[in-house]
Amino acid sequence: MILANLVRSRCSNLAQQIDFPVILWSGQPSPRNFPANVYPFRANSHFLYFAGLSIPRAAIRLDQGKLALFVNDPEPGSVLWHGPEPTGAQWAEQIGADAHYPLSALAERGKDGATLPVQDWATRKQQEQILGRSVSPLEGQDLELARAVVELRLCHDEPALSEIREAVAVSVEGHLRGMRGTAQAKTEAQVRSHIESVFTAHEMTPAYASIVTVHGEILHHDRSPHSLTPGDLLLVDAGAETLGGWAADITRTWPVNGRFSPTQQAIYEVVLAAHDRSIAQVKPGQEYEDIHLEAALAMAEGLVDLGILIGNPEILVERDAHALFFPHGIGHLLGLDVHDMEDLGDLAGYVPGRKRSDRFGLQFLRLNRPLQSGMVVTIEPGFYQVPAILDNPEFRSQYNDVVNWDKLAQFKDVRGIRIEDDVLVTHQGAEVLTAQLPTAPDQLEQAIVN
Amino acid sequence: MILANLVRSRCSNLAQQIDFPVILWSGQPSPRNFPANVYPFRANSHFLYFAGLSIPRAAIRLDQGKLALFVNDPEPGSVLWHGPEPTGAQWAEQIGADAHYPLSALAERGKDGATLPVQDWATRKQQEQILGRSVSPLEGQDLELARAVVELRLCHDEPALSEIREAVAVSVEGHLRGMRGTAQAKTEAQVRSHIESVFTAHEMTPAYASIVTVHGEILHHDRSPHSLTPGDLLLVDAGAETLGGWAADITRTWPVNGRFSPTQQAIYEVVLAAHDRSIAQVKPGQEYEDIHLEAALAMAEGLVDLGILIGNPEILVERDAHALFFPHGIGHLLGLDVHDMEDLGDLAGYVPGRKRSDRFGLQFLRLNRPLQSGMVVTIEPGFYQVPAILDNPEFRSQYNDVVNWDKLAQFKDVRGIRIEDDVLVTHQGAEVLTAQLPTAPDQLEQAIVN
Repeated sequence: MILANLVRSRCSNLAQQIDFPVILWSGQPSPRNFPANVYPFRANSHFLYFAGLSIPRAAIRLDQGKLALFVNDPEPGSVLWHGPEPTGAQWAEQIGADAHYPLSALAERGKDGATLPVQDWATRKQQEQILGRSVSPLEGQDLELARAVVELRLCHDEPALSEIREAVAVSVEGHLRGMRGTAQAKTEAQVRSHIESVFTAHEMTPAYASIVTVHGEILHHDRSPHSLTPGDLLLVDAGAETLGGWAADITRTWPVNGRFSPTQQAIYEVVLAAHDRSIAQVKPGQEYEDIHLEAALAMAEGLVDLGILIGNPEILVERDAHALFFPHGIGHLLGLDVHDMEDLGDLAGYVPGRKRSDRFGLQFLRLNRPLQSGMVVTIEPGFYQVPAILDNPEFRSQYNDVVNWDKLAQFKDVRGIRIEDDVLVTHQGAEVLTAQLPTAPDQLEQAIVN
Repeated sequence: MILANLVRSRCSNLAQQIDFPVILWSGQPSPRNFPANVYPFRANSHFLYFAGLSIPRAAIRLDQGKLALFVNDPEPGSVLWHGPEPTGAQWAEQIGADAHYPLSALAERGKDGATLPVQDWATRKQQEQILGRSVSPLEGQDLELARAVVELRLCHDEPALSEIREAVAVSVEGHLRGMRGTAQAKTEAQVRSHIESVFTAHEMTPAYASIVTVHGEILHHDRSPHSLTPGDLLLVDAGAETLGGWAADITRTWPVNGRFSPTQQAIYEVVLAAHDRSIAQVKPGQEYEDIHLEAALAMAEGLVDLGILIGNPEILVERDAHALFFPHGIGHLLGLDVHDMEDLGDLAGYVPGRKRSDRFGLQFLRLNRPLQSGMVVTIEPGFYQVPAILDNPEFRSQYNDVVNWDKLAQFKDVRGIRIEDDVLVTHQGAEVLTAQLPTAPDQLEQAIVN
């Protein structure tokens, strides 16, 4: 689709939800160690959604389906350092804006808009100055706007899906390269470099800090300091982001020497069953929380079969005993953000009126909605031996009757396993966007050895 | 050197310069598209220099050579996501702090200190709250502190040099990998991925946005969107940063098909002569501005020899005619920052009392000091055909008598060439830290073809 058509279509969809003007800012690069040395610029996701392009130091005004772009022409001195950059008129033409102004015009034309706060503080200060009010927490029309944007961004249009598919394709290639590189690698960092080099070669970036670690029991271990030892499992949670800002999010866990031990394979099969049963439930109308509970049940059943948990699996899930080993949620929304729209708190993840549960087994569930066609969600069950959980005296006494600790000790070569796919909800049920990347243990073994 | 000894030594050096207390903050991660998705944390360089370790959300108080560390113990819920993290006491032991407190103690123990502003706004707000005043622009004791820190950080101690050497070694390996990968590469991004993958494999990051481009005439072209076409020159300006924050900064320019054209080689030799003559001048006491002017003279002489410039080279330099093709400075300080201490403006780069020149040929010179033993500087002459300069009617008329435009047109396959090395000033003169990476055209050609 031509970009201008896409922009027009999304803007008019918004106009059907709200009847007041909206100003969205793209943000500006955040400085790293000195002002000229900045982190790679990443435009605000709401801006990206409506403007379609990453334009630094810009804002858009959306009103009645019309879009006005506010951006300055490049500074005269900038061309030496940054080359020819588009003028405001050229940006406006690219996105099919109805009008364009320099940023200074926002003082007049921006003051009556609802908005959503950007992440970088320099721009947030500008937002508050121009609007003459605080933009956080969300209130009034800002909150109405947030709800309308959630409505639009929950279900993806074709251009969005096409970008997500691109991010997925490159991420799959990255994981495959990582698997192939594992046989010769001596450290986590070396495998990480194989994976991320594929992203870079496609002009993409990691959508989030890659997790490439033999300590999978640390859920967000974003450093890779360890050596690889035969017998280790390597957990890799890495996804690419397109230049347009759309993300993939994939996890695989594989043995560094290309061969699962019997205990590793046994647990892996339990996680894989939870993964497969969860995906089988994905369809429009399905409550996502029930998918989470199905995964929990599958985990409980598998762990009972292995003799690690004791008792009736349904009752074990009611008691949250699965959460001793599967303490996080089954997944989340995926889109322009890897946890899509998490900048709005739980507004996107939770149906109005629903709140996070206090239950040990539900507290980290990021999505609690009936699924709709066009949503992309992750499905990512896992098994972890987290010392902070399993050595916690309270948990040990609370669950003493349902855990066979001696049996568990036989599985000590499994620190963490997660299997994560990106799944599009369709009218037919589910399309696993990441299906090109194997999940079966023998296929993983082959991918490493080859 | 044991870290605690290094910390003690740097703190007592500071105590010899100033007699008032100092509070330095490390900063906190900057959010990318939502609060939990942050850019890789990079601690403030002044904090890193004195504390020796990258500790997020921390501050140190330096007073009379004593160091107190302010950092909170990890949140109880954090261990699931981030694994076991050091307590305040453990951090304090690692760096040999004389005392340690939670962050809340800063309200009392931090309010009388001089400070330097961090880059992230969330922490800067905390700085201003605790100190009860603005921290930017630098004034009073903050300015005195900045001058004292510049005095210390200008010349590197052995542990600093050892970190810079590590960053250099990995950067050299990255460039060599990039050269080897060029023969098979079809795009700039593919070469960039080869180079940065070496950084990642060593648990390092780019110290700045890598420049990997066939459009070297755009000085800070930090995207890599172009295909490689036989006959192109690829300009690669890429350097790694150690976990401790120390940087390398290296540029090489090589032909994508492994063979310089005669015109490319001719210009390359001019830049290489400027490079070699500049390095030959590096020694304690030498004015860096004079090295810049020596490079300018070498460029002018070479371009006169090629028939591109016309006239007496000394007079051409006085008229800034060299700057038509070499518009930037010959280099800058290198250390914890790739432009070391540029967060302090020109305080580090310029001797007190000296100011940036207005001259076309001197305005971008970042360093204007007599060199001292222990400084590390870059030497990076370049030749560029920047349309914004060469097509500028003012410049064309001003320099019409000294440029042979027809002759220049024969060199149109040279858009940009830069050769940059990192040079340690020693009592003996200069040590080229990056000497392992070839500069001779035939050696570059071999590195690509092999």
